[in-house]
Amino acid sequence: MSPEWFYSKLNEDLSKIKELKPMIHHITNYVAMNDSANITIALGASPIMSFAHGEMEELASVASALLINIGTLDEYIIQAIMLALNTAKRKGVPVLLDPVGSGATKLRTSTAIAILNKGVDIVKGNHGEILSLLGKEGVVKGVDSRARIDAEVVKEVSQKTGSVVVATGKEDFASDGKKVYVMRNGTEMLGKITASGCMLGSVIASFMAVQRDYLVAAIEGLACYNVAGELAAKKSEGSGTFRQKLIDEISNISADKVMDRIKLEKVR
Amino acid sequence: MSPEWFYSKLNEDLSKIKELKPMIHHITNYVAMNDSANITIALGASPIMSFAHGEMEELASVASALLINIGTLDEYIIQAIMLALNTAKRKGVPVLLDPVGSGATKLRTSTAIAILNKGVDIVKGNHGEILSLLGKEGVVKGVDSRARIDAEVVKEVSQKTGSVVVATGKEDFASDGKKVYVMRNGTEMLGKITASGCMLGSVIASFMAVQRDYLVAAIEGLACYNVAGELAAKKSEGSGTFRQKLIDEISNISADKVMDRIKLEKVR
Amino acid sequence: MSPEWFYSKLNEDLSKIKELKPMIHHITNYVAMNDSANITIALGASPIMSFAHGEMEELASVASALLINIGTLDEYIIQAIMLALNTAKRKGVPVLLDPVGSGATKLRTSTAIAILNKGVDIVKGNHGEILSLLGKEGVVKGVDSRARIDAEVVKEVSQKTGSVVVATGKEDFASDGKKVYVMRNGTEMLGKITASGCMLGSVIASFMAVQRDYLVAAIEGLACYNVAGELAAKKSEGSGTFRQKLIDEISNISADKVMDRIKLEKVR
Repeated sequence: MSPEWFYSKLNEDLSKIKELKPMIHHITNYVAMNDSANITIALGASPIMSFAHGEMEELASVASALLINIGTLDEYIIQAIMLALNTAKRKGVPVLLDPVGSGATKLRTSTAIAILNKGVDIVKGNHGEILSLLGKEGVVKGVDSRARIDAEVVKEVSQKTGSVVVATGKEDFASDGKKVYVMRNGTEMLGKITASGCMLGSVIASFMAVQRDYLVAAIEGLACYNVAGELAAKKSEGSGTFRQKLIDEISNISADKVMDRIKLEKVR
Repeated sequence: MSPEWFYSKLNEDLSKIKELKPMIHHITNYVAMNDSANITIALGASPIMSFAHGEMEELASVASALLINIGTLDEYIIQAIMLALNTAKRKGVPVLLDPVGSGATKLRTSTAIAILNKGVDIVKGNHGEILSLLGKEGVVKGVDSRARIDAEVVKEVSQKTGSVVVATGKEDFASDGKKVYVMRNGTEMLGKITASGCMLGSVIASFMAVQRDYLVAAIEGLACYNVAGELAAKKSEGSGTFRQKLIDEISNISADKVMDRIKLEKVR
Repeated sequence: MSPEWFYSKLNEDLSKIKELKPMIHHITNYVAMNDSANITIALGASPIMSFAHGEMEELASVASALLINIGTLDEYIIQAIMLALNTAKRKGVPVLLDPVGSGATKLRTSTAIAILNKGVDIVKGNHGEILSLLGKEGVVKGVDSRARIDAEVVKEVSQKTGSVVVATGKEDFASDGKKVYVMRNGTEMLGKITASGCMLGSVIASFMAVQRDYLVAAIEGLACYNVAGELAAKKSEGSGTFRQKLIDEISNISADKVMDRIKLEKVR
């Protein structure tokens, strides 16, 4: 994956998102719904937030990607997830799982693992959440994580789950079970707003709708989100304005801006 | 409806909202709740978001308007809508329906039509949603719409449903089944944020609380919202800051600002 | 409570929050969830929003404070509140109740009183909500209140409920049933955004996690929130930008900034 190749893919995929406006079906938590919808539109895709059982199959059939985020659960939502997931799998709709808080409570860990066992294309979490999928103990505090992870572990989770794995933290890792990339972009401001990881999920899911090499889609999403964060941080006076500037920057992102700043390394 | 007459009504109704702080009972979707509450307060009215069955009748009895938005449904919410609607009808509380996604899934179309059949005062949707109420097929993508509509169709929907109809899109239409107005205001930025149509619903519902000619209320709401959007777009660097500036502009809107920019035409 | 003593406590407690990042378990309404999460992180604490029955005991056991806000209720949420509350009481986790809309509907009043009867450490509401806890009639309109209250009533509610009471309005009162303080800070802009009271609850709950004299925690939270509001109002062009600047100011708050502006008086 040479910089030139990545630039050309990213350029192409950003254009495709804006042209096709792919529908991204989100089953996500109540905290992130609004932010995720806004960032998805800002990128050019078309979000729909729904967990109504009566329309899960219909929506999952026509969606260009399905994002499942377990940030706020109840029995109804868990059932909705399974309904949508079954349809998505049958129809070949790409699926991203964001296992928010996995490792923090038994309910979240077991729900995340039940979803993973059905097979998802990308699983994206912070270091602690990704570790929890191995049954190893992460230090998960609230929905944040202070756990450490490394390239080998990310590869192991990818092999075990059969999914592309994105593990976010001070360094972000992405692996398809063979290769492992590390990205050293972003800003500490991304840790100072809620739904930060959830919005990243929306960005990656939007790329999945137009890029079927999911490792590439994951890296495209990470790169756009982190670089937008860096640019937004320079224009912010605190976490309140940062949130809005982040959406601004995503609405104005380009492959050129990304390539100016990206720090991506293949480590395995 | 001369410009002078409209100016004077709008001036009066904006003052009434600020003076009376009418309670606008919202049964709305999870994505829009916060934005709708903020824009309602910004205009001067008093929002309450609730679908608790145990208080539906109590709230619907004392509310000055009831807004029903079907953007995120489940069985509990559908029941709440019916409880509140029955009370509102009995008490003469004005009702606005925002049939988000009608035409996109069977659940939404049938829910919208079931509500309409009970009788609502205004139904406000994008072109595709409004078309779906006729049983005609709109091209509804996600919760957005690329469907075309014209003055004749809007009039037809109004006559069929017995409601004032507001159909938003590149051009906005409003009709009471006899007259049809078209408004050519707004900005493409309004299409780049989530809950944009939902917030318009909140603004129109606030006018319904003080203006019982609902065609006038609809046009007042459309005019304030579109003009606020135009003013906000000039001060924004992207869709993130636009959202906040839109609320700012609604909190500072006046009949004078509206009359400076309004492009309203009676077409039937 | 001399200014010097308060300054030193506030300085210490702000540092403790940033250092310990205490987990604040929120069971709160759908409107406020995102704003409350953001302000909690801005202050330095770690929010988790959850009402999933399957994890209530687990979360309530490890949380550093539990915030209960009844702004949007259904049967599932009411049960979640009781599950979390029972665990918090058993484990000695501090509990704050925000009885949003108590006095406005029977459901809210009776739910608030049922929670109070189990014993909470702080109850924080606007004047009308606090009055409703006495069974006296407040003038509650929407979820806002125009009711008047005074130091004697606040003390009475505190004695009756056994909780520290915070009553917000043009003047804010705080009492532990013996002493009563009044604070004359804040800005009318705080009344022009939704979830304003809810965010104050999050700020106070964050202080409860590190300061077990709950009257002190209440005053620390009130002071930070009001002063942040004052600073934000000076930088805002309307209620939309105010919201974001408020979060900015909380993310940059310090004991020095607070002491520069605080108007606190012991009245009983």
